[in-house]
Amino acid sequence: MARNASLSGFPEWLPEERLVEAHVLDTLRRTFELHGFSSIETRAVETVGHLLRKGEIDKEVYGLSRLQDDDGNTAVASKDDPNALALHFDLTVPFARYVVENAGYLSFPFRRYQIQKVWRGERPQEGRAREFTQADIDVVADGVLPFRYDVELALVIAEALSALPIPAFKLRINNRKLAEGFYRGIGLTDTAGVLRSIDKLEKIGADAVATLLKNELGATDEQAAKALALASIRTEDTSFVAAVRALGVTDELMEEGLDELEQVIAAAIKSAPGSVVADLSIARGLDYYTGTVYETVLVGHEQLGSICSGGRYDALASKGNRKFPGVGLSIGVTRLVARILSQEFAKASRSVPTAVLVTLSDEDSWGEAQDVAAALRARGISTEVAAKADKFGKQIKYADKRGIPYVWFTDESGEHQVKDIRSGEQVVADPAVWMPPVEDLTPQIIKA
Amino acid sequence: MARNASLSGFPEWLPEERLVEAHVLDTLRRTFELHGFSSIETRAVETVGHLLRKGEIDKEVYGLSRLQDDDGNTAVASKDDPNALALHFDLTVPFARYVVENAGYLSFPFRRYQIQKVWRGERPQEGRAREFTQADIDVVADGVLPFRYDVELALVIAEALSALPIPAFKLRINNRKLAEGFYRGIGLTDTAGVLRSIDKLEKIGADAVATLLKNELGATDEQAAKALALASIRTEDTSFVAAVRALGVTDELMEEGLDELEQVIAAAIKSAPGSVVADLSIARGLDYYTGTVYETVLVGHEQLGSICSGGRYDALASKGNRKFPGVGLSIGVTRLVARILSQEFAKASRSVPTAVLVTLSDEDSWGEAQDVAAALRARGISTEVAAKADKFGKQIKYADKRGIPYVWFTDESGEHQVKDIRSGEQVVADPAVWMPPVEDLTPQIIKA
Repeated sequence: MARNASLSGFPEWLPEERLVEAHVLDTLRRTFELHGFSSIETRAVETVGHLLRKGEIDKEVYGLSRLQDDDGNTAVASKDDPNALALHFDLTVPFARYVVENAGYLSFPFRRYQIQKVWRGERPQEGRAREFTQADIDVVADGVLPFRYDVELALVIAEALSALPIPAFKLRINNRKLAEGFYRGIGLTDTAGVLRSIDKLEKIGADAVATLLKNELGATDEQAAKALALASIRTEDTSFVAAVRALGVTDELMEEGLDELEQVIAAAIKSAPGSVVADLSIARGLDYYTGTVYETVLVGHEQLGSICSGGRYDALASKGNRKFPGVGLSIGVTRLVARILSQEFAKASRSVPTAVLVTLSDEDSWGEAQDVAAALRARGISTEVAAKADKFGKQIKYADKRGIPYVWFTDESGEHQVKDIRSGEQVVADPAVWMPPVEDLTPQIIKA
Repeated sequence: MARNASLSGFPEWLPEERLVEAHVLDTLRRTFELHGFSSIETRAVETVGHLLRKGEIDKEVYGLSRLQDDDGNTAVASKDDPNALALHFDLTVPFARYVVENAGYLSFPFRRYQIQKVWRGERPQEGRAREFTQADIDVVADGVLPFRYDVELALVIAEALSALPIPAFKLRINNRKLAEGFYRGIGLTDTAGVLRSIDKLEKIGADAVATLLKNELGATDEQAAKALALASIRTEDTSFVAAVRALGVTDELMEEGLDELEQVIAAAIKSAPGSVVADLSIARGLDYYTGTVYETVLVGHEQLGSICSGGRYDALASKGNRKFPGVGLSIGVTRLVARILSQEFAKASRSVPTAVLVTLSDEDSWGEAQDVAAALRARGISTEVAAKADKFGKQIKYADKRGIPYVWFTDESGEHQVKDIRSGEQVVADPAVWMPPVEDLTPQIIKA
C-alpha cells in the first residue's frame, strides 16, 4: 500500500487491500442484516434542486453534463438549474427522496442499510477523499418514530464497529434538544447560531468560541461562559445529568433532551461498556438534526475525525402533510479502510481467492484438469487450472508467486496428489473428498 | 415492480427487488472467486483523455464539473480538455489503466472480477439505462497471454450464467482473425469496415449490408455474397469449420482463427451443452478486440440484446514496450435483473432479512428483549425488537405487515415462546437453542 492515487482524492486498492475492504463491508452487511435492516441502493445522481435544498454545501457538489449533447454542443450543469444532474454527496438526502417516492411500497418503520460511493468535489486532504464509500443505517417512520430507535441505532452501530479490525472507538453522543433548550434557558435565542459556534470548539478553542458568541450572537460574558460550560461536560456514565443541572438552567426542551440522552447513554453503556460517552460539545454541522446526534472517533486516532456520525432528523422528508422522521448513522468506510491499511491493523493472509492450482502433466491433460477443478469447486474450494504444461517446477513457481497454497498433480502411476508448497508436504488425494484446512480455504483477514 | 424510475434511465429497486439483485451479485461473486478471480474496484472517474482515446464514444460520456469552483465560477468539463474528469462508461477501459499503473504490484496473469456501476449519457430506451451495474471478469498477462484463457473464460461465464435465475441462454462466439482473414482472402482489405457493416446485419438485414459493402467498401457482388455467406454460418458444434472451408477461401490468419474458434467451441460444448453456438455473424462494435469475441442472448428474449459480451484484446494496455494482452467478458447485471423482475423469473420469499420479532410485554421489558435478540443473532438469526409495548395483536400485525415469520414472547408464567404467525403454531423455546427451519432463516430467492 502507500502508493499514491493516480488521481488525487480517488483512492484505489490493490487486490490484497480490496480483500480487507471487502471484509469490512461483509461484516457491516452481516451485522445490519442480523438487526433486520434491508439493503437498498439509490442512483448516484440527484437533481441539483434536491441536493441543494438545504443550500449550504454547493461548493462540494460535482455536476454532470454530457460531453457532447445531441446537437453537438457541450451542455453544462449549473447550480442555477434545479433539473440539472449532480452526484450525491451523502446517502441521507437520496434516502429521504427514495422514502417519499416509494412510501406506498414500503412498510414503516422502514429499516434500511445502504452501502455506496459518494462524491465531494472538495480539495483532498489527509483522511478526506473525493470519492469514498459510506455505509449507512437508518430507521424512518410514517408519522411518529418512537424515541427508542435512537437508543437502538447506537447499539447496532457499536456492535458493527466492534466487529471490525480497528482499535477501540468512542461513540460520542449529544442531544440537540438538550443544547437548544439550555441556550434558550440562558436567553440565547439564535440556538442554531450557538450550535454553529460550538461546532468550532475543537478547531479554534474555547476563547475564540466565546468571542464568536459575544460578537456575532450578542451573548454576555456570563451567557458565553455558560454555553461553554455545557459544552465542556463529558461523562462515560449518566452523571452528565447532574452536571447539567448544576449549571442551574431550567427549560422544558432541555429536560426532554436530558431524559433522551440519559436513556441512550444508559442502554449503550450496558451494551458497549467503555465505548460510549455523553459529550455535550457534539453539535454536527448539518442543520437537519433535531434530537440525538452521534460522532465516533478511533482512540489514538482522533485527528482522523469522525468515522461514524449521524442523528435524529424529524423533518428531512415529507409529502404534503405526511412526515417521515428518521434516525440514522453513517460509517466512513473508505476513511476507516485507509487507516486499517496504513496502520496495518489487519491484512489478508493471501492476495488471491485461489486455494489450489491444478497443474498440467502435458498439454492434453487440460480437459482432465478442468474436471478435477470442477470437483474441487463443487465443494467450495477456489481452484485454477494451469494454462500451459510448463515444467512442474515452473508451475509451482507460478502458484508460489500468486500466493496459492496448494498444487494438484497426477503422478507417474496416474494417482492424484496434492502438495502444500509452503511445507513441501504432499499427500495422495481424491478430488471428490480432499479439503484444505479451513484457514487455507479462503483468504483470512488477520488482525495485527 | 414496474414502477417508473423518477429519473428516466436511472432505475432503483424496492427492498424485495434489491434482494434479487443481491442474489445475482452474490452468485456471480462466488462463481468468480471459485475460479480464482480477485476482486478490485476502480474509481468511477477517469480523465477525458483516457476515456476518449479510442475516439468514438464521446456522445455517451458524462463529464464532471464542480458546481461552484473555488473562485465562485462554474467550471465546465470539456471533451477538448484531456485532464477534465468524466464518469466511466465501462469497466474495461478503467481496468486497462489500473493494470498499467499497478503493474509492479500485480502478479501476472492477473485474474480479476469487478462489479460496479457505469454511466452512459445516452437516451434511455427499453433495456438500456444511463446508470447500470456491470460484472466483469478478465485475465491479463504481462507479455503473452496463452490462448487457452479464451477457452477458460467461456467456461467460467457459462457456469456463472447457469447459476442465475434466468431462462436458457446462448453464448455466441466468433473470432476476428477468422473473419478478417476471410475478408482479406476474398480481396476485401478494409477488414474493419467490413466488420462494421456485418455488425449491422441483425438491424438492417442482409440486402442492406450487401449494398453497404458494395457502395462504401467497393465490394463486388461476389465478394459481398461471400462475406454474407460467412456471416450466415451458425453451428452448435464444430461443423462450422467445414462450412467455412466449403466457401473455398484460403488465408493464414483465417486458419488461425478457425483453429482458435474450434478449440473454444469444442471445450465449451462439453462444459455447457446446448448453451454455446459458433456464430460467424458476431462482430462486436468496439474495435479493440483482436481474436475471440463473445455475445450472449437469453432464449426467447433476443430483443433484449446481449446480456454478456466481451472478447480478446491484445493491444488495449501497454507501458512503453510492455504489452498487457487480455481476454474478458462483461455481464449486464442491471439489464438482467430488470428482466428477471419484470418477467418474474424469480422473487424473494420475503422483503426483510428479519426472521424473528421479539415483542414487548411492557415498556420495562425492552432491555430483556434485547438480550433475547442478542442470543438469537449470535446464532445467525436476524432479529428485531419491538419499539413499543403495544397490544400483542398489534405487535403481531406489525410483524405480519413486514413479512417477519416469527414472533417471540414471554407468557404469564415467564416462559419464552415463539409463534409462527403464518400457521399460528407456537412452541416453548430457549433463545440459546431455538432455530427456525433453514428456508425461514434468511430470505430465499425462489425461481418461478
